[in-house]
Amino acid sequence: MKNQLLPLKLEDIITLWKSTIGIERESIRITHDGSHSMLAHSPEWGDRNHQPYIQTDFGENQLEFITPPSNSTEEIIQWLAATHQIVAQTNEKNEELIWPFSMPALIPENRGEIKVAQLTNVVERQYREYLADYYGKDVQLVSGIHYNFKINPEVIEAYCPADSSLIEYSNDIYSKLARNFMRYRWILTYLLAASPFVDSSYRTNLYGKPHKTTMRSIRQSRYGYQNDASINISYESLEAFVNSLEAAVENKELSVEKELYRDVRFRRSQPVRQLLNKGIDYLELRNFDINPFAPYGITQEDMEFIRLFILTLLYIDDILTDEEIAVGQDFQYKTAEGSPLDPPINITEAEFIFAKMYELAKVLDDYHMVEESMVDIVTKKSRLLKQPELTLSGQLYNIIETPSRFLDFGMQLAKEHQRTYLARPYSLHGFEAFELSTQDVIKEAVRHGIEVTIIDAQENLIRLDYDGHTEYVKNGNMTRQDTLISYFLMENKVATKILLEKAGISVPKGLSFNSIDEGRAYYHQLKMDAFVIKPKNTNYGLGITIFETKPSQDRFDKALEFAFKEDATVLLEAFAKGTELRFYVQNKAVKAVVERQPAQIIGDGRSTISQLIDVVNQDPSRGKKHLAPLTYIEKGEAEMSVLEEVGMTMDSIPEKEEVIYLRKNSNISTGGLSIDRTDEVHESYKKIAEAASQALGANFCGVDIIMEDYTQEAKETNYSVIEANFNPMITLHRYPGVGTQRPVGRWVLEQLYPEVQFNTDGF
Amino acid sequence: MKNQLLPLKLEDIITLWKSTIGIERESIRITHDGSHSMLAHSPEWGDRNHQPYIQTDFGENQLEFITPPSNSTEEIIQWLAATHQIVAQTNEKNEELIWPFSMPALIPENRGEIKVAQLTNVVERQYREYLADYYGKDVQLVSGIHYNFKINPEVIEAYCPADSSLIEYSNDIYSKLARNFMRYRWILTYLLAASPFVDSSYRTNLYGKPHKTTMRSIRQSRYGYQNDASINISYESLEAFVNSLEAAVENKELSVEKELYRDVRFRRSQPVRQLLNKGIDYLELRNFDINPFAPYGITQEDMEFIRLFILTLLYIDDILTDEEIAVGQDFQYKTAEGSPLDPPINITEAEFIFAKMYELAKVLDDYHMVEESMVDIVTKKSRLLKQPELTLSGQLYNIIETPSRFLDFGMQLAKEHQRTYLARPYSLHGFEAFELSTQDVIKEAVRHGIEVTIIDAQENLIRLDYDGHTEYVKNGNMTRQDTLISYFLMENKVATKILLEKAGISVPKGLSFNSIDEGRAYYHQLKMDAFVIKPKNTNYGLGITIFETKPSQDRFDKALEFAFKEDATVLLEAFAKGTELRFYVQNKAVKAVVERQPAQIIGDGRSTISQLIDVVNQDPSRGKKHLAPLTYIEKGEAEMSVLEEVGMTMDSIPEKEEVIYLRKNSNISTGGLSIDRTDEVHESYKKIAEAASQALGANFCGVDIIMEDYTQEAKETNYSVIEANFNPMITLHRYPGVGTQRPVGRWVLEQLYPEVQFNTDGF
Repeated sequence: MKNQLLPLKLEDIITLWKSTIGIERESIRITHDGSHSMLAHSPEWGDRNHQPYIQTDFGENQLEFITPPSNSTEEIIQWLAATHQIVAQTNEKNEELIWPFSMPALIPENRGEIKVAQLTNVVERQYREYLADYYGKDVQLVSGIHYNFKINPEVIEAYCPADSSLIEYSNDIYSKLARNFMRYRWILTYLLAASPFVDSSYRTNLYGKPHKTTMRSIRQSRYGYQNDASINISYESLEAFVNSLEAAVENKELSVEKELYRDVRFRRSQPVRQLLNKGIDYLELRNFDINPFAPYGITQEDMEFIRLFILTLLYIDDILTDEEIAVGQDFQYKTAEGSPLDPPINITEAEFIFAKMYELAKVLDDYHMVEESMVDIVTKKSRLLKQPELTLSGQLYNIIETPSRFLDFGMQLAKEHQRTYLARPYSLHGFEAFELSTQDVIKEAVRHGIEVTIIDAQENLIRLDYDGHTEYVKNGNMTRQDTLISYFLMENKVATKILLEKAGISVPKGLSFNSIDEGRAYYHQLKMDAFVIKPKNTNYGLGITIFETKPSQDRFDKALEFAFKEDATVLLEAFAKGTELRFYVQNKAVKAVVERQPAQIIGDGRSTISQLIDVVNQDPSRGKKHLAPLTYIEKGEAEMSVLEEVGMTMDSIPEKEEVIYLRKNSNISTGGLSIDRTDEVHESYKKIAEAASQALGANFCGVDIIMEDYTQEAKETNYSVIEANFNPMITLHRYPGVGTQRPVGRWVLEQLYPEVQFNTDGF
Repeated sequence: MKNQLLPLKLEDIITLWKSTIGIERESIRITHDGSHSMLAHSPEWGDRNHQPYIQTDFGENQLEFITPPSNSTEEIIQWLAATHQIVAQTNEKNEELIWPFSMPALIPENRGEIKVAQLTNVVERQYREYLADYYGKDVQLVSGIHYNFKINPEVIEAYCPADSSLIEYSNDIYSKLARNFMRYRWILTYLLAASPFVDSSYRTNLYGKPHKTTMRSIRQSRYGYQNDASINISYESLEAFVNSLEAAVENKELSVEKELYRDVRFRRSQPVRQLLNKGIDYLELRNFDINPFAPYGITQEDMEFIRLFILTLLYIDDILTDEEIAVGQDFQYKTAEGSPLDPPINITEAEFIFAKMYELAKVLDDYHMVEESMVDIVTKKSRLLKQPELTLSGQLYNIIETPSRFLDFGMQLAKEHQRTYLARPYSLHGFEAFELSTQDVIKEAVRHGIEVTIIDAQENLIRLDYDGHTEYVKNGNMTRQDTLISYFLMENKVATKILLEKAGISVPKGLSFNSIDEGRAYYHQLKMDAFVIKPKNTNYGLGITIFETKPSQDRFDKALEFAFKEDATVLLEAFAKGTELRFYVQNKAVKAVVERQPAQIIGDGRSTISQLIDVVNQDPSRGKKHLAPLTYIEKGEAEMSVLEEVGMTMDSIPEKEEVIYLRKNSNISTGGLSIDRTDEVHESYKKIAEAASQALGANFCGVDIIMEDYTQEAKETNYSVIEANFNPMITLHRYPGVGTQRPVGRWVLEQLYPEVQFNTDGF
């Protein structure tokens, strides 16, 4: 008896919760007047033959956003956020938007203008042409959400009887899930359907008559894209399914197996017969309308709710028969084709499922399996059974009111979402937990179809895969292009200096002490006036004393003691004055140069310094420390004491064009400003930075050079290389406060993947 | 007026103290019967064309130990210790010793048997043949210490008048130093001469008559190796010196410039005329006898004393004239040729120099410039002015008494020193502050003439140079052969596991949790009985709980809490049982394998466990943690509780051959035993370790594999790769407690320097 499969215990929900979800979200690119975009799928989204994240579905303008499978809905939303952002940045340049509804926007009178996806695979193109001919382009452009679901195999293994084949047992469980889903999916349609209107340009004769202008889900109705329901497919067992599907193709009811467009698909590489001996890999659940309010087409909460709904179907009895499935199909059509304000078709059935969901939700909450309370989510949804006006379609129906306002409202949402996608352009949406440099690399990878796997988020460690070519990247540019020893040579300031000096590069004169006495003794031969005493390895500037004139022995000794508190080796170095530039060197060539200046404001002759700081802090590229390319300028003690030195306060009003510095140090983390100088700096300094990177054997490195005047040629004495950094801050160049943005993340990938075509000069 | 040069202040001694010293120590290889060794200079000491540390002087059996220049006498002693150890290890195999005296040991009747150094440079060989002909081989075999001295150039620069040429000014100062040294060196001879006897086989007719059998320094007398004093060389100015030396060669008084064998040599690449325009680089002071009591021919204290003596000569007036130098030469011969018990030739002069030295020593002590008190050192030496019997020659004279006992006493010291050289063979003498792995690499580098520069001792970071080919090595095997990313992949245990699994390598089953709740929830699907809960990055084993049977949820939760105290990510891993082997993989091939076993003793049927531990701890390869290949077994709580579990105490007497473990863990640092298994382990595990290193992209790595039986072929389930280490402990293989020693340091160098011939299979 199949009903005896999986006598699940309530607590198994914990393990089942680790089942894997993958989302495919389709969407039409439109122009600003609401019509279908005729622009080709942008090459900025990579080569479609190698792009796992951003694809085209039926139409050339029909985007498909595909997430990697994950058991975390948070991760899935992150991936959707990232791909939507990437697409939207190109769309913005092309004056396009992402259409937020399942039902298409304004369809051109001449359907010939709508191109099927221009794939290089001829069979795929021909298949699309066939679909266009057979079903019409209008229905093919209907877009939806596919919810892919793979049951945590550990549970199946745990329950599989010793005398059963694991594949058969697993197939049976997936079959049960498919049957129950088809029986009860109408409940999800009631709650989540979201296509009550369509533009009047939409045509379909699939149902044999003109469609009604309003229903709960036009997409899920018989006016959407459905195969003829008369094709006889059995779901009573997997074998019955395979046999009936093969027969349908044999009888030419379907051109190919994959043409079967039912709400549940058994997934495994084709042909379907493979399912029997290789097993069902996962289920593809295809009945979800795009939620137009959600920028990514589906909310995280709904993803969690659907997950619980699916898992609940494993806990209840198997409906077993095709007859029961037919009942489910009937409920589904009635729900979809009813008014958005109709009550549920069978409230008792819905309440039965909700009761079971509630039981499981309590267990999930006991273990904090979901960020929000799962019980709350279930409770909230259960209320909708009595309040159809609060379901998605109910809300849309009340807001839009009439089909003629459908396009306008869609455009309004599309523009709102576009603003969401374009916010914080320097970060990769969804990946804000990573350093900005890693975000930039991931963004360029995803954009170009290089597969990204997070190995360790806290460590900013990722894997990249492209056509069998694997690379690992840590912190944006630590890769196999650099040697291990080069890392240690740059990490060790004494070693760095020795190597640079040996290569004939000017470094700040100085020496190291291993004891306070050794340092004290040196006072007698000290010739420098301006110098720094600092621990060999200093973090956060601890233990550093700067002398601008020669100090007394007493003050000198105190500075030594201060530094020796931090490290067993202390450096004394000439304090070079001038401008400090950061050179980004990659593969022996300087690619970008920035100057960092201390936090500053420029007077307008009217506003106080405090007011001017507020204005500067509104720059969208400023944010909290390390979370944005630039940091908010503070009004703290440090800033006030700098003002005091020049006789000002926060309330002083600087002259027009007067530059007021609020810090002595130029760190970005204390409000400093980065200014791109790549094209202005004298070539001679680039040669020096390149020589420094070679002396250190570095592939990726940041070289800090202090110089009198960066526009004048470097001589032996008018510059010093201060240090070299094995993990330079990409963001300095990628999003400088002033000047040209340099695509460092893309450059990193270009070196790692010479075989990939990078079409992103605009970024 | 030259006397006006350098009006030094007393405190300048601090800066002058940073002057650079280099030592060359010559020595004869002898056989165990006290005669000259006829064996060729060993190829184990590298290629003499590329060997900066271990050379041959005049004779093929006349070693020359050369230290790099340094301002630290401690460092110089370290280098001497290292090169003596390296030479002695070969000598031991060849049944040779290092002769401890300046005057030669037993010279064969047939002088033809003594070969000049068999250098590949023909001119150098011919020059030696000429010397042998002209002066006789006996005097050429006289060995000494050359003390090279370079004045800290900062002082010279600081005092150089603005209108002077720095080179001329520097040359003047070196000339003054040379003159004063020749005038007063007799004081050093009085104190430090150490060749009062010579074997009766020694012949010289240089002095025109048979030599006396006893004097303070036969080597420094006219019976040693001296040019004819009648050759007229002026030291009144550098120009006068160059002119007179060129004239001597012109007149055939000397065959080549370098034949001039005076106690002071001006050093700079030849010819001498270069000195005038390029400047004197340093002085070579050649008058020092080998101190036979010192294993390395000179003590650190004497090096410091000589340094102060030399610097003192800069503080006193310039003696200016060749007449004064002649007085110094006269005092020198009289001191050398007098009786070892004679008082100083001019006590007033000696006391004058000592008074000045004492003043300077006080300043040095104020700044703790010398480890010991410099005032104490000066005071101790000054006492010898009144106690000639306590000078080196005085002591030797009283101990040896008669020339006929010279050979015997020399052999006695040679054997004592050999024991010193052979102690702690696993370490590199003088370099014990480094990790053992770095010591091994430095030892093999020095042995093969690869130049070693310490970049950062604390960091175990060194530079290697051979014929223009530079490499950097950190911690023994972190080099440019490894990539930066591979380091991070191995450092990150989660990443390591992901990569190994992807490569089809069996790893302990398990998973990671990011919160306690996530871990708690997993309890419900926990299938393993034996497993470990541990922080992702664990140091010193903190936060680890091992379960050998499935625990209650409560105990499970406690283990999670314990682990989460150490890290934000916690791993749960199957606890694999079996034997754990460490595979050393280099350049894709397993080179060595060891097993680590817990601290243990083997019963003899008589002794208590406590006594047996004492015996084991006498193994010379055991020492304090990290300072020796194995660690002392302790008798602490941990050991006692392990004994208690098997019903024993420290006073129990195990059966003969009974193995008693004193620890559960097999770490070397807690007394564990390493056993070489390279030749015993089944090849299949080597393939796995090699695959693991490739999966991680590692060149140098240590792979830990746990397996049921290392002699049985690896199958899918009978092993687990536990972890991979980017910095494997070389010493495990280099000096295992049991089994064959594997030359890992040499292997590292072989890969870095394929152009070098490695002739050290014996090590």
